[in-house]
Amino acid sequence: MTSTLAKLSDTLGDIVSVSTADLEAARADKSGHVSDAAPLAVVHARSIDDVQRTMRYATETGTPVVTRGAGTGLAGGAIAGAGEIVLSTIGMNRILEISRDDELAVVQPGVINADLNTALEPSGLWFAPDPASRAISTIGGNIATNAGGLLCAKYGVTRESVLGVKVVLADGRLMEFGHRTVKGVTGLDLAGLMIGSEGTLGVIVEATVKVQALPQGIASTIGAWFASVEDAARAAAVITATGIRPAIMELLDPNAMASIADHLGLDVRPGQSFLLVQTDGHGASVGAENALAVIRSLGGDAEHTTDPAESARLFGMRRAFHPAMEARGTVLIEDVCVPRSALPAMFNAITAIAGKHGVDIATVAHAGDGNLHPNFVFQGVDVPAAVWAAADELFLTALRLGGTLTGEHGVGLLKKRWLGEELGSEQLELQRSIKGVFDPQGLLNRGKVF
Amino acid sequence: MTSTLAKLSDTLGDIVSVSTADLEAARADKSGHVSDAAPLAVVHARSIDDVQRTMRYATETGTPVVTRGAGTGLAGGAIAGAGEIVLSTIGMNRILEISRDDELAVVQPGVINADLNTALEPSGLWFAPDPASRAISTIGGNIATNAGGLLCAKYGVTRESVLGVKVVLADGRLMEFGHRTVKGVTGLDLAGLMIGSEGTLGVIVEATVKVQALPQGIASTIGAWFASVEDAARAAAVITATGIRPAIMELLDPNAMASIADHLGLDVRPGQSFLLVQTDGHGASVGAENALAVIRSLGGDAEHTTDPAESARLFGMRRAFHPAMEARGTVLIEDVCVPRSALPAMFNAITAIAGKHGVDIATVAHAGDGNLHPNFVFQGVDVPAAVWAAADELFLTALRLGGTLTGEHGVGLLKKRWLGEELGSEQLELQRSIKGVFDPQGLLNRGKVF
Ligand SMILES: Cc1cc2nc3c(=O)[nH]c(=O)nc-3n(C[C@H](O)[C@H](O)[C@H](O)COP(=O)(O)OP(=O)(O)OC[C@H]3O[C@@H](n4cnc5c(N)ncnc54)[C@H](O)[C@@H]3O)c2cc1C
Ligand SMILES: Cc1cc2nc3c(=O)[nH]c(=O)nc-3n(C[C@H](O)[C@H](O)[C@H](O)COP(=O)(O)OP(=O)(O)OC[C@H]3O[C@@H](n4cnc5c(N)ncnc54)[C@H](O)[C@@H]3O)c2cc1C
Repeated sequence: MTSTLAKLSDTLGDIVSVSTADLEAARADKSGHVSDAAPLAVVHARSIDDVQRTMRYATETGTPVVTRGAGTGLAGGAIAGAGEIVLSTIGMNRILEISRDDELAVVQPGVINADLNTALEPSGLWFAPDPASRAISTIGGNIATNAGGLLCAKYGVTRESVLGVKVVLADGRLMEFGHRTVKGVTGLDLAGLMIGSEGTLGVIVEATVKVQALPQGIASTIGAWFASVEDAARAAAVITATGIRPAIMELLDPNAMASIADHLGLDVRPGQSFLLVQTDGHGASVGAENALAVIRSLGGDAEHTTDPAESARLFGMRRAFHPAMEARGTVLIEDVCVPRSALPAMFNAITAIAGKHGVDIATVAHAGDGNLHPNFVFQGVDVPAAVWAAADELFLTALRLGGTLTGEHGVGLLKKRWLGEELGSEQLELQRSIKGVFDPQGLLNRGKVF
Repeated sequence: MTSTLAKLSDTLGDIVSVSTADLEAARADKSGHVSDAAPLAVVHARSIDDVQRTMRYATETGTPVVTRGAGTGLAGGAIAGAGEIVLSTIGMNRILEISRDDELAVVQPGVINADLNTALEPSGLWFAPDPASRAISTIGGNIATNAGGLLCAKYGVTRESVLGVKVVLADGRLMEFGHRTVKGVTGLDLAGLMIGSEGTLGVIVEATVKVQALPQGIASTIGAWFASVEDAARAAAVITATGIRPAIMELLDPNAMASIADHLGLDVRPGQSFLLVQTDGHGASVGAENALAVIRSLGGDAEHTTDPAESARLFGMRRAFHPAMEARGTVLIEDVCVPRSALPAMFNAITAIAGKHGVDIATVAHAGDGNLHPNFVFQGVDVPAAVWAAADELFLTALRLGGTLTGEHGVGLLKKRWLGEELGSEQLELQRSIKGVFDPQGLLNRGKVF
């Protein structure tokens, strides 16, 4: 081990860190998981060449590697343990190009999502993928997880905003996948395959991403209260089915709302669910009128505003969700996705599951795309058995409703044991074989996902 | 051969055809290529089980298979030759489900694109991918080629409208890739990998596709004339860069316009280029006003209408392009894509290349996404050497401008020899290895693409 480390430092010089702080940080991400032991070293890559040299070294010595962005992942994908090299791309944080004419930006993987948007704003442009972690997560991590966010029902997930990627394979070879053009069908879509691959196929060292003009016009915001979460969920489903395409549609269930009310000191009637809808662009006001009609027809009590301050107040409740949860205990953030029409059934199932297992679940949903984040709250650091039992039932319910195990957070370590339930053993084998083409020694994110 | 055929008929019964008409038809698509000899047989699949049995038979006997939809492809992908089985999916043409609530449809691969849209219309829905061949091409073929069309700058290519696919692998196993949900990141994105894979990875036997509400409001149409094709191209590029997102933006160069004028008996001044722009949805009229301003600032002479009849007249010119070309001789339809800002340079290069090689090229472009279709016109059935030489220079020019060999038609047989130029030999090898995971014996579309 020590000799491996010495050779690594010889090869890579002072970008190799074995500081306790670096090693300890790399044992965790934001999933709540912590690895059993500290990794071998953290390589702070500054260039493509650094990444290539690290991977060549790893291949020669058979050393496993965990690629890490900002470590904000919620699936344990960036967690590293004994004998592993952590390859950090967060220091590769330069924006290489912004092209107004071609509506694209070329970035290194460590650029923070929000920093790209700050750089784009003077040109009237933005990068649409907007995970709630956009102020702290990297674009490399966003691509590796195919991150979603509040705006993706209208503006798409990260997938829809990536044109091309440069990737270093396990053996150190550099590949360019995808195009600088908005269309292109030359060979298999390997850029697409990298998106959401959670660090298992290669290291993303550069990305050409789509950017677009900031939406025009005045946004309309609706805050609506429902006595029944099922009706709130139905309203969300009907709004989309009616052809309205809100930029944002978030649903907070009664448990979530109660926690937020506590946290912010608001006076909210118990049992109330909150649906937040924002329409933007040229159709904003028509869309809001139509959404209001749907909401009221389903018993929602709604206010509607175009005033930025009032809108900010409504968004403030949604934004307080994570802090409110954390104030209550340890939180396991889940992430299932169901066809929109199954939203009411899924909310009902969550209530039933929480009752049956006696666990505390507060749920927020990106309702525009049927993506629910049930948050399990408990005391102490270890996830109680009842929480896992409830999570298990919740995942299988989502699958039964035609849904998927993970809408945007990924599989990582957290959902590995359920993967076969969704994919089936034959597809799992096929996925492993594809991984084998990219990484024959199985060095990249060993033991994750598959 | 005869014994292979006898066994095939034994196994599959009367869905196996060896009629001369069937065999001859399978030797060609719309690329102009014809295979050297007739294939072994055509299997008219009616069910997933038919496809599985055919592929099991092919694997057992090592017989190569060419999957075929409507045969409208422009890259030679569906062409079959000696010793090959043609697996036709055009008879699998049932629409299995239309869900208004979840904005999706489940279809068999042989459903004609326009037929799905006819079925969707009463629900106020549509399937956005709109290749000019939508009245004659299949959704399976659209997915296998990742077909684009006139509307994709705003509404996306086929990729953006596919949620999941069922695929039969070379050995006959049935796999389900993707989701019924709009989001999902469970494992590698193999549904995405199938899109644009041109029949090389498996047979698409079912697809779950996104459908959406028909655009609201009154569409605005602009027809603009330019004395310089470079200015017309610049106007198109600037329109997008200004943040306007037309539903349609088509550019016809002077040679294209002259042919159309001849064909329709119109009086068009020589040397004129035509730019057709349509904006739709709630921002239609603002978008059209802004586009007009750009056009006029660049010397365009524009008319603007919201009258459906007048708009149809303008579109009539664009629609007459293919018939006008065919009336002039044999046509080789090309398909390069460049970053939008490179459109003026690419148009200039085409003029220069046509002059240098003494060939006749008329070009139409989906200008909203930088996708040009240079049409080479010649007499007789064999492509003259000068046309190939000009095409070669044209492809390399597109690559040099940051573009790609094919925006939407695919590689098939036609562009196989240029693939390495774009991908490089290492990526080509990687792509072949992935193909090998799906199809170890190399039975599916042998000799195509890679
Ligand atoms: C408060 C909070 C809110 C969040 N909200 C959302 C949300 O709304 N939507 C959402 O989708 N996620 C959300 N997340 C999860 C997380 O922020 C995203 O998954 C994000 O994309 C991870 O980026 P990162 O840079 O932190 O990656 P990391 O956590 O460092 O890594 C995540 C995965 O990507 C891989 N990876 C990272 N960089 C690279 C690279 N350069 N090349 C190859 N692989 C790489 C890692 O190996 C790992 O598997 C949230 C997290 C928090 C803490
Ligand atoms: C007049 C005209 C206009 C056109 N306009 C456009 C346009 O605007 N945009 C555009 O993108 N294309 C266009 N095309 C090209 C063509 O129509 C498209 O490529 C279309 O998607 C092909 O569909 P098809 O059913 O005819 O497929 P085919 O030609 O039969 O096959 C095409 C490829 O897909 C594979 N394939 C077919 N079905 C399956 C399946 N079920 N499973 C796996 N693989 C399969 C075949 O092996 C082949 O490689 C045009 C063609 C014509 C003749």
